[in-house]
Order: sequence, then structure tokens, then C-alpha cells
Amino acid sequence: MVASALLPELWTEILVPVCAVVGILFSLFQWYVVSRVKLTSDLGASSSAGKNGHEDYLIEEEEGVNDQSVVAKCAEIQTAISEGATSFLFTEYKYVGVFMIFFAGVIFVFLGSVEGFSTENKACTYDAKRVCKPALATAAFSTVAFVLGAVTSVLSGFLGMKIATYANARTTLEARKGVGKAFIVAFRSGAVMGFLLAASGLLVLYITINVFKIYYGDDWEGLFEAITGYGLGGSSMALFGRVGGGIYTKAADVGADLVGKIERNIPEDDPRNPAVIADNVGDNVGDIAGMGSDLFGSYAEASCAALVVASISSFGNNHDFTAMCYPLLISSMGILVCLITTLFATDFFEIKVVKEIEPALKNQLIISTVIMTVGIAIVSWVGLPSSFTIFNFGVQKVVKNWQLFLCVCVGLWAGLIIGFVTEYYTSNAYSPVQDVADSCRTGAATNVIFGLALGYKSVIIPIFAIAISIFVSFSFAAMYGVAVAALGMLSTIATGLAIDAYGPISDNAGGIAEMAGMSHRIRERTDALDAAGNTTAAIGKGFAIGSAALVSLALFGAFVSRAGIHTVDVLTPKVIIGLLVGAMLPYWFSAMTMKSVGSAALKMVEEVRRQFNTIPGLMEGTAKPDYATCVKISTDASIKEMIPPGCLVMLTPLIVGFFFGVETLSGVLAGSLVSGVQIAISASNTGGAWDNAKKYIEAGVSEHAKSLGPKGSEPHKAAVIGDTIGDPLKDTSGPSLNILIKLMAVESLVFAPFFATHGGILFKYL
Amino acid sequence: MVASALLPELWTEILVPVCAVVGILFSLFQWYVVSRVKLTSDLGASSSAGKNGHEDYLIEEEEGVNDQSVVAKCAEIQTAISEGATSFLFTEYKYVGVFMIFFAGVIFVFLGSVEGFSTENKACTYDAKRVCKPALATAAFSTVAFVLGAVTSVLSGFLGMKIATYANARTTLEARKGVGKAFIVAFRSGAVMGFLLAASGLLVLYITINVFKIYYGDDWEGLFEAITGYGLGGSSMALFGRVGGGIYTKAADVGADLVGKIERNIPEDDPRNPAVIADNVGDNVGDIAGMGSDLFGSYAEASCAALVVASISSFGNNHDFTAMCYPLLISSMGILVCLITTLFATDFFEIKVVKEIEPALKNQLIISTVIMTVGIAIVSWVGLPSSFTIFNFGVQKVVKNWQLFLCVCVGLWAGLIIGFVTEYYTSNAYSPVQDVADSCRTGAATNVIFGLALGYKSVIIPIFAIAISIFVSFSFAAMYGVAVAALGMLSTIATGLAIDAYGPISDNAGGIAEMAGMSHRIRERTDALDAAGNTTAAIGKGFAIGSAALVSLALFGAFVSRAGIHTVDVLTPKVIIGLLVGAMLPYWFSAMTMKSVGSAALKMVEEVRRQFNTIPGLMEGTAKPDYATCVKISTDASIKEMIPPGCLVMLTPLIVGFFFGVETLSGVLAGSLVSGVQIAISASNTGGAWDNAKKYIEAGVSEHAKSLGPKGSEPHKAAVIGDTIGDPLKDTSGPSLNILIKLMAVESLVFAPFFATHGGILFKYL
Repeated sequence: MVASALLPELWTEILVPVCAVVGILFSLFQWYVVSRVKLTSDLGASSSAGKNGHEDYLIEEEEGVNDQSVVAKCAEIQTAISEGATSFLFTEYKYVGVFMIFFAGVIFVFLGSVEGFSTENKACTYDAKRVCKPALATAAFSTVAFVLGAVTSVLSGFLGMKIATYANARTTLEARKGVGKAFIVAFRSGAVMGFLLAASGLLVLYITINVFKIYYGDDWEGLFEAITGYGLGGSSMALFGRVGGGIYTKAADVGADLVGKIERNIPEDDPRNPAVIADNVGDNVGDIAGMGSDLFGSYAEASCAALVVASISSFGNNHDFTAMCYPLLISSMGILVCLITTLFATDFFEIKVVKEIEPALKNQLIISTVIMTVGIAIVSWVGLPSSFTIFNFGVQKVVKNWQLFLCVCVGLWAGLIIGFVTEYYTSNAYSPVQDVADSCRTGAATNVIFGLALGYKSVIIPIFAIAISIFVSFSFAAMYGVAVAALGMLSTIATGLAIDAYGPISDNAGGIAEMAGMSHRIRERTDALDAAGNTTAAIGKGFAIGSAALVSLALFGAFVSRAGIHTVDVLTPKVIIGLLVGAMLPYWFSAMTMKSVGSAALKMVEEVRRQFNTIPGLMEGTAKPDYATCVKISTDASIKEMIPPGCLVMLTPLIVGFFFGVETLSGVLAGSLVSGVQIAISASNTGGAWDNAKKYIEAGVSEHAKSLGPKGSEPHKAAVIGDTIGDPLKDTSGPSLNILIKLMAVESLVFAPFFATHGGILFKYL
Repeated sequence: MVASALLPELWTEILVPVCAVVGILFSLFQWYVVSRVKLTSDLGASSSAGKNGHEDYLIEEEEGVNDQSVVAKCAEIQTAISEGATSFLFTEYKYVGVFMIFFAGVIFVFLGSVEGFSTENKACTYDAKRVCKPALATAAFSTVAFVLGAVTSVLSGFLGMKIATYANARTTLEARKGVGKAFIVAFRSGAVMGFLLAASGLLVLYITINVFKIYYGDDWEGLFEAITGYGLGGSSMALFGRVGGGIYTKAADVGADLVGKIERNIPEDDPRNPAVIADNVGDNVGDIAGMGSDLFGSYAEASCAALVVASISSFGNNHDFTAMCYPLLISSMGILVCLITTLFATDFFEIKVVKEIEPALKNQLIISTVIMTVGIAIVSWVGLPSSFTIFNFGVQKVVKNWQLFLCVCVGLWAGLIIGFVTEYYTSNAYSPVQDVADSCRTGAATNVIFGLALGYKSVIIPIFAIAISIFVSFSFAAMYGVAVAALGMLSTIATGLAIDAYGPISDNAGGIAEMAGMSHRIRERTDALDAAGNTTAAIGKGFAIGSAALVSLALFGAFVSRAGIHTVDVLTPKVIIGLLVGAMLPYWFSAMTMKSVGSAALKMVEEVRRQFNTIPGLMEGTAKPDYATCVKISTDASIKEMIPPGCLVMLTPLIVGFFFGVETLSGVLAGSLVSGVQIAISASNTGGAWDNAKKYIEAGVSEHAKSLGPKGSEPHKAAVIGDTIGDPLKDTSGPSLNILIKLMAVESLVFAPFFATHGGILFKYL
């Protein structure tokens, strides 16, 4: 049992940060390449120069490349979007910052109270011969880790937004040269975000562990207990980012569509629409910043769950640092694998026609998964002893290294399957979305019925994939197996994020093209990029949900271990009521977020209508709308409306744990997990399918699609209604549910010692 | 511990059947009263007689009472509806009959194989001193009980339909005399169904127990094991009734609305609409027959669950027949209480104006609950020993009679709370529905978003009510407590069914008034009845779902006991994957049923459009549509489409139990319970809210409502779309989910000995 990993400790200490730094450098290189698309250089000249003023552009055959006034216009719009997004995020962070400081205090006080704020060392729980640090120290370090996680999450989201708003106008400009060039810019920008986030998440975690180790020394149990705060910090930020950003973006989107597309019959992203800037800002704060924080949170939580379970296994007991760092090694390998994968899209092949876009993005998933499988094998071979023991709710379990390899792989491949099933149900290349489009013939009602049915149906295979992953990984290596399976699914996060961020960037690029008054052909190119982006966004959400399910289960397992429970028996009243109420929470949460989007959208509609009615010349394009008021409506609504759902998620574990105790809390966690994952998947896919059904009718590429179109036909109107309903489902409530299930689990884990000591007061006195 | 109940065994033997017979007689009396409204007597004369031909009618001041041609027309329409419903039910029963015979064979073979078809007696499981009958006998008697349950369920549904189609035209005719008279007819007819069903369910169960006892003698364990087949039979029939009927009714309804209301702008139930007869038939086969079977199933299952748990408690061991019959005594008391309650609506008070209808129906719930609380106290006092022991997964638990009284009460009152919460969220007298109606201002999309949010939100309080019921009853008396809590909720089933059946009868009455060309004022009266009926239907569904949750948990507990499991630990891979997959099943099931309704509705739309386009003079009312083809489309679609969801529910427990074993099956049952109950509640309430939001705009009683209307305005059109989407949610997939969760549990219970012996073969060989 004292066999240790092949890889010496020193190598591990070097390899992990090196991989992280390589990831960051690669990200900066991609940024540099994107920045070569000039947006400002000729601005001074452009406004005075005529259409054919710059002869050097004439050698190019592409469309509109020589029109410098367009460049100026794009730069102007980009600035407006970027400023709107920055200002919203700063407002959001200000409010969330206050909450974070408050919550950091709660963590410190609650965890410190476990041993009555004693500063004495004590015997370790899992190894009585060793001396462990006092609970007060863990309280302090947990608080620090929490703040670090929150700050890293904020940075991830903020930098992602900055990159996206930097890239959107550049994508538009490149679209003049052809769809391939535009694709590369959008994809590279996505990669900047993906690598920056994956690498910095790893680096900060690694440094934190090493710094904390200086104090904790021998006490790995306490060390990794404190580290879980990192996951909680990351995830709490992500919650507010997702919910706030989600409400922002969908209030603007729904509001803009309801008046613009449905009432006024003007195209999407038309500059005459007062809500158009708010809509484009929304893509960046919701889909980019929110999603960045979300996936960072998943990654941080999966790592923390694996580390905390490992710390009480033979790795922790034997102080085998390399094996202990196995989760970090997997992530390091992931960065290298994704780096190679990215080259396939940017350098090895070139996109020339529209129909190559979706395969190129899908190939990214396949390539990264295949190479990563080899990578996992290598890491498992050098980074693990051939056999080790894992703590399994009171009993020890012997695990072989090849078993752990299988655990990681099953998560990785389950992710791919979920991705492809999501694609099947949300891409308009396949029959499910086409059926939904077809049902628009008989109006919006059948469209909605078919869309809801599609979303429900799309849950089946992903759930089986998740169930099989859980069964394999749980059977082989208990909760440690589940945690590394989650890490496996997230190991290619850099690639996943790249193709995920690509979507909103293309969406924005299309908006900028429309607003800058560029030609119809350029808009068609960005639309093609955007349609592929819709599908990849759905795939990204599928990954996020799948990994959230595994992460949440792993965290749940870690919580149960730390709370000292050995069984969570459904056949006890405390657990079954927890299960039932837990399964209800995603509904409660969705009710709040859906209603928030609806109410905010109503306000937006009123404002947009007011502007159309009161600003003379707006419809004719001679007067400019008041974009700022719409931006303010979205900002105010999202800040105000993110508080109740945020409180629901953050307070539930505290209330349940404190009043009802750890058994009921276990039930709540399990219930919200098994129920939330279903709603999250179905909501995302229903929304994605409606969006693409609408695009299918608009694009009109097949005979069938043409028979439903064109834009403005009755079936198309029905499709637009479905699309609008899908907006809050797929971009607000659906993706926020991932965070609900993860966050409640990680919060319970962090507070587990407190609940175990002081929790369940209601039953104690009844 | 050998203290027995106050009530002597002989008294119990007499009281239960007497109460059942009283219920049946009361039901027949109500039928007699309804039958005094003559529909045919003057038919011969009426066709030749002129408007003022019958002078004796002139003394009445009401409207149109003297028009005998209307009576003839009503009679004709009623016959068409009744024939359509009868023919559909016969077709349905033919197919289901084949399935039942097959499944009866499966039960016999599977259960017989538990002891290898041995005919030897053996020692009892829970009392080794006693001799029990062989598994083969239990297999045979279970099969018989299954068939009896199925037949009783068929009869319940069929008779309910007969009464409803008997009463609908009579309600229309009475509406000429005023809203109060019409209300009484509709309500009495509902009562016929309620009492007939509650009383015959009790009587058949009672007789079956007594007949089986002749063979089983001392072996109560085997006796009540065999009796569980009764619940399974009732519930399997209910599944097909609900799903088949639900698809039938909604295909016709959605199809009729999409073309009639939306495309052709003709009113609901207009005789020119070819799908109008199918739509009215649908109300009777879906909402009446389906719901009757459903609630009969709940009642049978709750009784079986309580009996089987009691049979292995001290009641069974001590052969205390009165205490053993406690569940039947509760139901007997329920019949008497409901009888008194009914008099409050029919005799003690009289409805004079429209606004008294809803309070009258709500008072029924309150009165029955209050009186029943006293009834339960009496039954608990005389029917139970002061203290007894209950089997609780391996340990014995001592229970006092007052504790069991509280268990029943908590279920009863939770039902009332669920009813009122449902009313709050679905009645247009309160702000939630008014908000949804208001959101129609900005179109169908916001209506759908607000409606979905409302449905999600409406889950919160019912879940807490159910959770508290479970916690109290489980803590006091383990699974026996949960079973009697379910019985408590169902104890006022006769009243619940009466007000529930009242809805579709009024709906049909309105349809008949429209088709018979009666005056606008009469249609207004039936519409008022119908609007109240919508709310009571939602309340009825709330009851059905709440009781299904409790019943299902009780059955689950009984299953676990019989399968010999002592804990269902979420922290084992087998259970957690079961939980996850179980939570997915309601989505899979809903996907099937929603899609079925959608596809069938599309076919209906095409046929209706075809008739409008090809039959000359149809729109002008000079030619008659071809109703029969529409009836056939609904029939064929529902028969074909009910098979896949039926198989999903019936086969899942068999496949999971056989291949994966009882632990995974436990997980599946718990998962589908906690997830299914949420979707069922939210789907029902969302649909009900949309329906009433539409009615709110149409009725235009307040300033706010008037600002949204009138019929045909843009907000009204948006409301109609919501109503159409809600149809399959509230009448097909939502209510079928009750059956999904109950049926899988009762099926697992029946097959428990088989799974315990031969199940889990996949893990045995892996």
C-alpha cells in the first residue's frame, strides 16, 4: 500500500505550473493574432475617404473591404457594447462584492465556532496519530480560499467579456473577406478565453495549495478542507453571474424581439431598435461572462471535491504528493491536449465554405476527446501508484490505477455523448428540430407543444450517460471516482469553452454587421457562423450540466464523509422529505428566474414602444434611439432580480443544515441533483431547438424549409414566438440550474463541520 | 400489546358493507333525481309542435323552456356524444383487455416461479410459528385480484361516462330555468359518479378479502399479499384510461380550437366545426372515465398499501380483524361524511347567482374535511387498540391510536391545503392568473413564460404540505402512517369526485347549448358553471397528485418490506443511478404523451381544414360536417399512441427489477416519485391557469379584464395560444404522471417476491 507514483514529487511541482503557464502564453498568442485585425488605424482617414479612396484595398476581391466608414461604424458600436458590458459588470460586482464580504464573514464565524474558536491543535479525524490544526485556522483559510475563488471567477468572467467585445467587431470586419476568415477570428477569440480560464484556474489553485501548505505542513486533512472554500467562492460568483447576466441578456433580447420583430417587422439587430445595444451587451455579460464563471466554478469544484476525498485516502495518509495532485495533473494534461486540438481548427485545416463550420467545431470535440484519452492513460500510469485505498463512507476500498483511468475516461466520453445528443436535438440538420419547425404550420401552440416534448425527450440519453458514468466510477473508486469522472468531463474545458464562446461572439458580429449597415451577404455569413454557434452553445450547456451532475454528486459524497454520515437512507422521514423538497427547489428557482425575465422584458417592451411612439423619425432611420435607457432597464432589473434566487440557493443549505440537520440536507442535495439536472437539460434543449427551428425556416435551404418560410410567413411568426419563449429557458433558468445543484453541494461541504456539530437544532429540541 | 379494538369483529363485518351499500343507494337516488329532467318524453310532439304549442310551459318565466325543438336537438347531440364515447371506450377496453390477459399471465408465471411452482405450504416470513400458503397460491389469487381490480376500474370509468353523458344535456336544459337548477343537475350527476365509485371500490375490495380469507384462513400475510393485485389491476386500467382518454380528448380539443377558433374565427363548440363532437366525447372519456379510473386506482392502492403493511404488524400477527380493517373503516366513514356534505350543496342551500357557484363547491371541500376529522377520531377510537406495533424495515415500532389519528388527519388536511393552493394559482379571481392574463398584452410568448413560471411556483406549498404529511405520518407510524395519510386524503373521495366530475359535465352542457343553437344567455350560464368547473378540476387534480405521492411512498415502503431490504442508501451506486434514471422517467413519459397529442392534433387539423375547404356550405351552416371521421381520428390516434407510454410504465419495474435488482428499483421508484410529483403539479396548474386567463379575458368582468378583451383582440389571441398549449399539459401528461408514480410502485410491490428471488441478474453475473 505504500507504493507511490512513478512521477517524482519535484516533477509534479514543476509540471503543473509549467502547463498552466503554457496555457496562458498560448492564450496570449491567440489574442495577439486576433489583434492584428485592425479596427482603428485608418479611422482618421476613413471618414473623409470615399468608397474607392484606398487603392491598396482594391486588389482584394472580397466585398466591402475598402469601405473605411464601415470600420469606423463597427468600432463605434463595439465601443458602445464594450462600455455597456463593462459598466454592467462593475455594477454587478459591486453588489455581489458586498454579499461576498458578508458571506466570507459567515464562513469564518460558522466554521470557527465548530471548536468554539479554540486555537489548540487536536488529533486528526482520520489518523489519530497525527496532529491537526484547529478549526479556527481552517475557518480562516477557508475564508481566504473562498475570496480567492470568487476573485478568480470574477476575473474569468470579466476577461472573457473583454476578449469577446474585443473580437466581435473584428469578426464582422473579417466576414467581409469570407466566412473562413471570420470563423478563425471568432474561434481564436473563444480559445483566448478557454485557455486563459483553464490555465489561470489551475495556476491559482496550485499556488493556493502550496502557500497554504506552508502553514498546514503535515495536516493535509485540514489543508484540503480549507481549499474547498475555493470551489465555493468560484461557484457563488458564478451563480450571480449566470442569473444576473441571464436576466440581463434575456430581458433585452425578449424585449427587443417582441416589439422589433413581432410588432414593427424590423429585422433582428436593427439599429432603429432602442434595445439593440442592450441585447448585444447581454450576449457578453450573460453567455460569455456568466458561462465563463460557471465553467470555472465547475472546474474548481470538481478539483476540490477530488482533493478533499483524496486527502483522507491513502494518498493523504502517506503524503504522496504526486498522487494527491492527480486531479491537477489531469487538468494540466488537458491544457496541452486542447492546445494541440486548437491547431486543428486554426492551422492544420482551413474553413472555406459555410457547411464546413459545424463539422470543424464538432471535430474539435472528437479530437480533444481522443487525444485526451491517451493523455489520461499517461497521467494515470505515471501519476498514480498501481494500487491505493480510498475512503468509502466508513470502509476503505482498494483501487487499481487502471480503474481510476477508466473512471476519468467514462466521464470524458460521457461528455462527448452528451454533446452529440444535444447536437442531434438542437441542430436543424436533423429531424427533431425539423419536426418542430414543421409543427409551426399549425401555429405557435403546436410549436410550443412539440418543442417542450423535444426537450423532455432529449433528457433520456444524457441521463443514461451520466448514470453509467456514475455507476462505473462509483463502483471502481467510490466518490473519488465520481470526482475524477467529473474532472474527465471537464478536462477538455479549454476546447469546450472556445467553441462555446465562439457562439455569442458570432452572434454579436452579426449584430454589428446589421447595425453598421453592411451588405446582406456579410450578414448571411455571420448568420451562418451564428447558427453553428447556437448548436455549439447547446453542446456547451450539455457539458456544463453533465459535469455539474457529476461534480455535485462528488461534492455530496465529500460532504457526507465530512459530516460523518455513513448512510443516506431514503427510508427515513428526514431523508425522504429532504429528497422531495430538494426536487422542488429547481422549480422554485426556475419560477423566480423565468418570472424575472418576463417582468423585465415587459418593462423593456414598454420603453421600446414608448421610444417608437414618441421619437419622431425613429422608424425612418433619421433619428437615433435612446439606447442608454434600455441598457439601464436591463441593468436595474437584473441586479434587483438576481437577489431572491441567489438567496434561495445560498440560504437553503444553511437553513436546512442548521435547523433540520445533515440527513435532511443530504436528501435535499440528492433531490435537487436528480430533479435539477433533468429540467436543466430539457430547458436548454427546448430553447436551442426553438431558436434553430426559427433559423431553419429563415435560412430556407431545403424544399421543406422553403415551404414554411419566408420570414414573416405565419409559420415563421409561430417560430419566432417559440424562440422568444425559449430565450429565458435556455439562457437564464436552464443554465443557472447547474449552479444551483453544484453550489448547494459545495456550500454544504464547506459548512459540513459546522452542521455536524451545531446542526439539526429543530429535531434536537422536538 | 394484545389489547384489541373496541369495535367487535362482527360489527366491522357488518358496518363496512352497510356503508358501501348506503353509498350505492345514495348514488342511485341522485341518479333518479337527475332522471326527472325529461329529455325524450315530448320528443314525438316537439318536432311538429310550434314555439308556443305547449301552453303549460308558458307559466314558467325562464328562457326558452317552451321550445321543444331544442329538447330534441339536445337529445340528438347527447346521443351522438354518448355513442361516440361508448364506442371509443369499447375499442379501448378491447385492446386493453388483451393486454390485461397477457399481464395476468405474467403475474401468475412470475409470482408462481418464486418457489418453483411448488404447492407445498411453508413457514411464514414474519411469524415462523405459523404456516403460510405456497407462492403458487398467492400467484393465482394475485392474478384474480388483479383482474377484479381491472374490471372494477373499467366499470368505474364506464359508469362515470354513462352518467356524465346522461347528465350533460339535462344540465343544458335546466340552464334554461336558471343557473341554480343547472348547477344542481350537474353536481348531482357528479355525486352519482363519486358515490358509486367510492362505494363499489370499497364493496368489491371487502368481498374479495372475505372470499380470499376462506382459502387463506390463518395466513393473513399471504392473503393481503394477494390483495395487492387489486391495486395493480385498478391502476393499470387507469393508466390506459388516462393516457388513451387524455390523448383522445386533447387531440380533438386542440385540433378543433386550432382551426375553429384561430383560423376560422368561429366560437368554441360551434356545430359547424367537424371536430366538435369528438371534442365533447373527449371530455367524457378523458376527464370523466379516465379520472374515475385514476382515483379509483389511488383509492385501491392506498387501501392495499395500508393492508399489506398492517398484515405484518401486530394487527396481522394477533389476527385483530377490526384493527386490520381500519383502512376500510376510514373509507366507510368517508362515504357517510360525504353523504352529509353533499346535502349542503343539494338540499340545505340553493345556488341563485353565478358568484355563489365557486364558494358552494369550495365549501364542499371544507365541510367534508371538517366533518371527516371528527369521523376519523371516532374510527380511530373504536377501530384501533390503544397501542400496537408496526413493522418498520426490520424493527418494530410502537404506535398509539391517537398518533394514527394524527397521521390520517395530516393527510386529510394536506389535501385541503393543496386544493386551496391549486385554486389560488388557477382561479382567475386571484392575482397569479390575472398576471398571466396581463402578460398577454405583449403576446403569446410572454403569456407562455409567465404561465410556465406560475406552474413552477405553484409547486412550492403543495410540496411542503406533502413533505409535512410524510414527516408526521412516517415519524409516528412508519409506512403504515404514510398509507393511512394517503387514505385520509382520499377519504372524502366521493365529494372530491363529485366536484371534479361536475366540471366536464358543465363543459359538455355548454357545448350542447352552443350546438343546439340555444340563446346567448344560456351559454353564459353554462360558461359560468364551466369556469368554476375548471378550477375544481384543477383542485381535483391537485388532490389526485397529492394522494398519488403519498400512496406511492406507502407502496414503495411496502415493496421494500416485502423485498427484504432494510435500507435504501443513496450513497451506493445502484441506488443513485436508479434515483437519477427514475427522476428522468416522468420526462420521457411526458415527451411521449405531449408528442402524441401534438401529432394527433395535427392530423385532426388537417381533416378539419379539409372539410372546411371541400364541403360546400359548411361555413354558412347549410351543410353538416362529417363528425364521424374526426371521432375516428381521435380514436385511432389514442389507441395507437397509448401503447408506448403504457409499455414504458408497465415494463420499467419489470426490467429494472429483473436485470438490476431491488436496490436499483428502489432508487427508480423514489426518483420518479420526487420528480414526477413536481412536473404533475406544475403541468396541471400551468394548464389550468392558461385556461382561466383566457376565460378571464373573455368574461371581462373587471376593468382590467375589459382592457385586455374582447374576444378576438390581440391579447385574447395570445391567451388562446396559451390555453391550447396547456391542454395536453393539464389533461394528458400532467394527470397521467400520478399514475406513473403509483403504478410503478404497486407493480414493484406485487412482483417484490419475484425480484427478491430472481432479480438483479445483471449484477449476479458481472
